[in-house]
Amino acid sequence: MKLVQFVYKNNPEEIRAGYVVDDNVVDINKADPTIPSTIIEILKNGDIDKVKKLQDGDQNSEPISSVTIKAPIHGNDKVLCVGLNYKDHCIEQNFPAPDIPFIFNKFPSTVIGQDVPVKLKPDVSDKVVCEVELTIVIGKTASKVKASDAYDYILGYTIAQDIGATDWQNNKALGQLLLGKAMDTFCPVGPCITTSDEIDNPQALNISCIVNGVQKQKSNTNQFIHKIPEIIERLSNVFTLLPGDIILTGTPGGVGLYRNPPEFLQAGDVIASEIEKIGVLITRVENF
Amino acid sequence: MKLVQFVYKNNPEEIRAGYVVDDNVVDINKADPTIPSTIIEILKNGDIDKVKKLQDGDQNSEPISSVTIKAPIHGNDKVLCVGLNYKDHCIEQNFPAPDIPFIFNKFPSTVIGQDVPVKLKPDVSDKVVCEVELTIVIGKTASKVKASDAYDYILGYTIAQDIGATDWQNNKALGQLLLGKAMDTFCPVGPCITTSDEIDNPQALNISCIVNGVQKQKSNTNQFIHKIPEIIERLSNVFTLLPGDIILTGTPGGVGLYRNPPEFLQAGDVIASEIEKIGVLITRVENF
Repeated sequence: MKLVQFVYKNNPEEIRAGYVVDDNVVDINKADPTIPSTIIEILKNGDIDKVKKLQDGDQNSEPISSVTIKAPIHGNDKVLCVGLNYKDHCIEQNFPAPDIPFIFNKFPSTVIGQDVPVKLKPDVSDKVVCEVELTIVIGKTASKVKASDAYDYILGYTIAQDIGATDWQNNKALGQLLLGKAMDTFCPVGPCITTSDEIDNPQALNISCIVNGVQKQKSNTNQFIHKIPEIIERLSNVFTLLPGDIILTGTPGGVGLYRNPPEFLQAGDVIASEIEKIGVLITRVENF
Repeated sequence: MKLVQFVYKNNPEEIRAGYVVDDNVVDINKADPTIPSTIIEILKNGDIDKVKKLQDGDQNSEPISSVTIKAPIHGNDKVLCVGLNYKDHCIEQNFPAPDIPFIFNKFPSTVIGQDVPVKLKPDVSDKVVCEVELTIVIGKTASKVKASDAYDYILGYTIAQDIGATDWQNNKALGQLLLGKAMDTFCPVGPCITTSDEIDNPQALNISCIVNGVQKQKSNTNQFIHKIPEIIERLSNVFTLLPGDIILTGTPGGVGLYRNPPEFLQAGDVIASEIEKIGVLITRVENF
């Protein structure tokens, strides 16, 4: 099942959960009014099994082209990120591969859908880069989870673009990544969440990023240094992962900062990030 | 006005905004049903001026002793923290005073009220400390604010205890403070938000922390290295501060890690953090 969130064009403020059938989106809450109308509320209510039992039905569906697709999650507590999780990305920046997951975060408000542009503020930074990342969506409360049970807590997977102002990650923020990583709009997510049952092995997915038609990143999630079960075990033993929390799992080599010469995002850029079995997240870049 | 959030003892799940009059709390939404029932919704709706115009009235008030006081904010986007913001705290850890604000954060879910204990997980860390901090509550959306206008965006001030697992702030988290600072329950906040109009100068407040009856920290907010207007200007130029966002402004010297011998929180500890014109936040510590 490919879960999405969308708005009807005549009601752009009300985010609604749906799932994709061919070229249509089924409105979950219309199909079963006992199910809440957003993904976060569905997860908090424990209603995801009811969603999975819904039958495709024309009467509650709309052509995707007639709605606006938003980020597939909003209103969550945590946007966690694993840094330095592909060997080639460590090598390109002369960092040793860390022996434990390297964790930082963004604010929930940084999450945007493909309908919203990434906003550059040239007076704040002209050294902004984009990194494609397989992104875990937590399905239920996870505390002190063992690696062997970790997949039970995952709703599914989506695509995120980890946008970062590289000059704000070191001296301008005294070594803490937060400020450079958590600027407004710096976490495009989408277009859908592919539920776990449709991805046999999330550690064997092709992943790539194309900027303005030129391929910049290309790898496979089998290159992770720290695999998904280890990440879930470690994080859930430090704090409680809540339904709707997302975890960006790191990016492969090819990041703009480390290209020769370095390449930074510019107004007008179009970023297409693709992960097998999920889809393509396409984002535009604008000055703000 | 001292804003609080509370629950009625017969309805412990429904958080309600109120304000304190003598030994009573007035239920804001009961006093004016056109005003939302939580602080975050009041701020998002822009209804704080309606709250300030409410008249004290017995008919919508309850003795404070008959309700349970919760954290005065919940459901917000950001819990920001300024580190190294008192000279004596820099000196005790041999850090030079930073020339820019040093920023890290916690998750919104880490915020608890005085009704919930700080939960230690001895298998995760036995090196947890508490730091008292004057805490700014943002009242309205703040983007690219000049220092000279910064106070216009502040709803008021509360007290937070910045709880941190000191062994998770360096090697165990590869230098990022997040994991050590954002464990469950590691951000007690309260008991109230004193609105800005009742605090002429937030940079001249006595601040102290007493653990088990022994004073551990004692200072005044006139010792800040980076003052409130500078903090708001810097942060709001990096990202947008949203209504309900809170900013912990740093702690004075006397932190347990730097005492001789070091002192770490233990189950059974009682932490009383006091700031002039706000009150006392009293928290219990338990093993989990």
